[in-house]
Amino acid sequence: MIVKVIRNARIFTPEGSTPSSGAASGHVRFLPGGGMLIKDGLLEAVGPEEEILSSPLAARADEEIDCGGRCVIPGFVDPHTHMCFAARREGEFSLRLAGTSYLDILKSGGGILSSVDAVRASSDEELFASTAALALSALSFGTTTVEMKSGYGLDTGTELRMLSVIRRVGRETPLDVVPTFMGAHAIPREYAGRGDDFVDLLVTEMLGAVKEQGIALFCDVFCETGVFSIEQTRRILLKAKEMGFGLKVHADEVHDTGGAALAAELGAVSAEHLLAASDQGIAALAASGTVAILLPATAWSLRKPFARARYMIDQGVPVALATDCNPGSSFTESMPYVFGLAVLGMGLTVEEALVASTKNSACGIGRGDLCGTLERGKQADFLVLDGETPAILAYHGGVSPVEEVYKKGELVA
Amino acid sequence: MIVKVIRNARIFTPEGSTPSSGAASGHVRFLPGGGMLIKDGLLEAVGPEEEILSSPLAARADEEIDCGGRCVIPGFVDPHTHMCFAARREGEFSLRLAGTSYLDILKSGGGILSSVDAVRASSDEELFASTAALALSALSFGTTTVEMKSGYGLDTGTELRMLSVIRRVGRETPLDVVPTFMGAHAIPREYAGRGDDFVDLLVTEMLGAVKEQGIALFCDVFCETGVFSIEQTRRILLKAKEMGFGLKVHADEVHDTGGAALAAELGAVSAEHLLAASDQGIAALAASGTVAILLPATAWSLRKPFARARYMIDQGVPVALATDCNPGSSFTESMPYVFGLAVLGMGLTVEEALVASTKNSACGIGRGDLCGTLERGKQADFLVLDGETPAILAYHGGVSPVEEVYKKGELVA
Repeated sequence: MIVKVIRNARIFTPEGSTPSSGAASGHVRFLPGGGMLIKDGLLEAVGPEEEILSSPLAARADEEIDCGGRCVIPGFVDPHTHMCFAARREGEFSLRLAGTSYLDILKSGGGILSSVDAVRASSDEELFASTAALALSALSFGTTTVEMKSGYGLDTGTELRMLSVIRRVGRETPLDVVPTFMGAHAIPREYAGRGDDFVDLLVTEMLGAVKEQGIALFCDVFCETGVFSIEQTRRILLKAKEMGFGLKVHADEVHDTGGAALAAELGAVSAEHLLAASDQGIAALAASGTVAILLPATAWSLRKPFARARYMIDQGVPVALATDCNPGSSFTESMPYVFGLAVLGMGLTVEEALVASTKNSACGIGRGDLCGTLERGKQADFLVLDGETPAILAYHGGVSPVEEVYKKGELVA
Repeated sequence: MIVKVIRNARIFTPEGSTPSSGAASGHVRFLPGGGMLIKDGLLEAVGPEEEILSSPLAARADEEIDCGGRCVIPGFVDPHTHMCFAARREGEFSLRLAGTSYLDILKSGGGILSSVDAVRASSDEELFASTAALALSALSFGTTTVEMKSGYGLDTGTELRMLSVIRRVGRETPLDVVPTFMGAHAIPREYAGRGDDFVDLLVTEMLGAVKEQGIALFCDVFCETGVFSIEQTRRILLKAKEMGFGLKVHADEVHDTGGAALAAELGAVSAEHLLAASDQGIAALAASGTVAILLPATAWSLRKPFARARYMIDQGVPVALATDCNPGSSFTESMPYVFGLAVLGMGLTVEEALVASTKNSACGIGRGDLCGTLERGKQADFLVLDGETPAILAYHGGVSPVEEVYKKGELVA
């Protein structure tokens, strides 16, 4: 048994294991002189320092860590990434700045399809090296749990290969990695004009192969005009649900196609993007308790208006934040960057942004019981910040205040 | 004599020593296989690698640096900072997010005046330590020349003390530091309601004391409703000009008081902020060639619309970018962050942002002949980036791509 005591910390943490919404969206517990007791990587107690230090277990501590009065928050949970890719798309970024639209780039064989080419051409080692490097960079910015989607393979073999690389990143880095199968990320070149045939392949072959290897927890679909229609999305997700996958939907990113309402109807754990979500779609998410995973770095990078985060919160939707880390529309692995955009761009309060990037994002990938808050029984995943409050994440522009990263009680970055 | 050769670099650099405007605002020379020859810290030649390597001087090189095909740009010049301060204002940031205006915070004795309290209470060593730490952090983000303003002293002794700390930062760090006297940053508490008396003090005592010590190159005034009026600003700047200071103006930040036009009229090297500048003010800047130093991180942090950068460029104003690093309205020392905001928030092209953050910003502090471009005769101040083009500065959101910083030919970060 290894026991650690954390003391002299200004602890800010959401509470509970289910998504926060409505008036509770900004509920954060603040312990000005806080402490934590960690037993074998799990939180045994979190409270005022005196209380922690006077517990019998504290007397047996193997290590005592003084945070010097700095701010301590839960490790970030990044619930939406495409971090497993083989090549950047720096040139395409400049094209977009010059006015070419994201969907036009995709139609002309760039965008996601160029990442598919790169992943198909890469070796396992190359793909692992680039994914692990990004994951470790994310860790240095405070991400302790990350979701990663496949979807740059688009054939059975390459999708399985991506999921296997994603699993390996979880095994060989300190991060907890939650794998999502996203074979329905785009129509591959070899199925151009035959989307329904590709959907056939997804439901008759790919989903089963992924299930057999037990290599993904969720199934996600890019439901969008020109990509997968509502009907195709429904067909894929119903099959995935039947097979026991949790469901996620890339919904209403560019056009409102009713993706949010579909996510709510099918009991998806999350609907993601939502830049174009209608009032009805948002009402449906509120009614079902589906987590809205918002990606402000994507809107910003595409120079589009942000998702209507304030309206969603006011309507009772639980809101989470993610990087969307990918080589096209959002090349960032930094949750502090996303936090700053959420506060200064979308108008969340600091407390709402904290809940959205820790507890609600954990709930958005089914990990609300394991991480996302600093409470007894959860993993001791926490960050020590160069500041007095979580406001430092938006206040110190462009500079990460994450000074120390602890994963399951171990200093890892 | 020390000779260095830089090779295998994708060099992107503005050209010339005077501010770029109009159609030239985005003029950048690109050398895909570039090299540089450095003699005693100055650039001896910049051109295609073959040309550089075949020069007689290259044969005598003490060191050869292979950039591995990475992008190389001039070191950033940050032409507007208040980096010399003694305490952060993290709590005030949260107040502003909750809706209190910047000018209301200033009126109630917070804002600049709380920084004045902190600087007056600090020792020279404390003030030096915090300023040098920020300067070295800025250096790690690629800033090789930085302007720093006084203005948290507001009495003769403390203003001189700030300028002396600023000079020491220039001597004891690798950065070139350009000092600006800004006694006219706010009306100090002891002159509350007696602004004209404080202006008397400025023109009859402070300017002379600063001049005598030869400790500042520029004089700057916060020309704004409730701070210094156009008439007061004119009086201070005319006196400063007579004494040989270069002129700068904090102009039209919150309200259009005609500050831009005044800067143009008096031959100021720059007008800064300009969020509220009128069409007439902008036309005056274009006619006089005054550099518009824009501070997108400040607008973003205050949740206000950005300065009209595109309109200014279209009207022929030379535009520069700066951090405005200060503990209130813009706590950032990162020029990559400002670059990203300029491209994604203000709509500059990557090339325009590069010119604005190197050559034009050098011209905005009278250093156009020394730095800001990679050309024969200038200082060998340059950055090696983790990318193929300067677009990486906006493309990799929230993550600095600055991998190596060279100042006068020396690797310093």
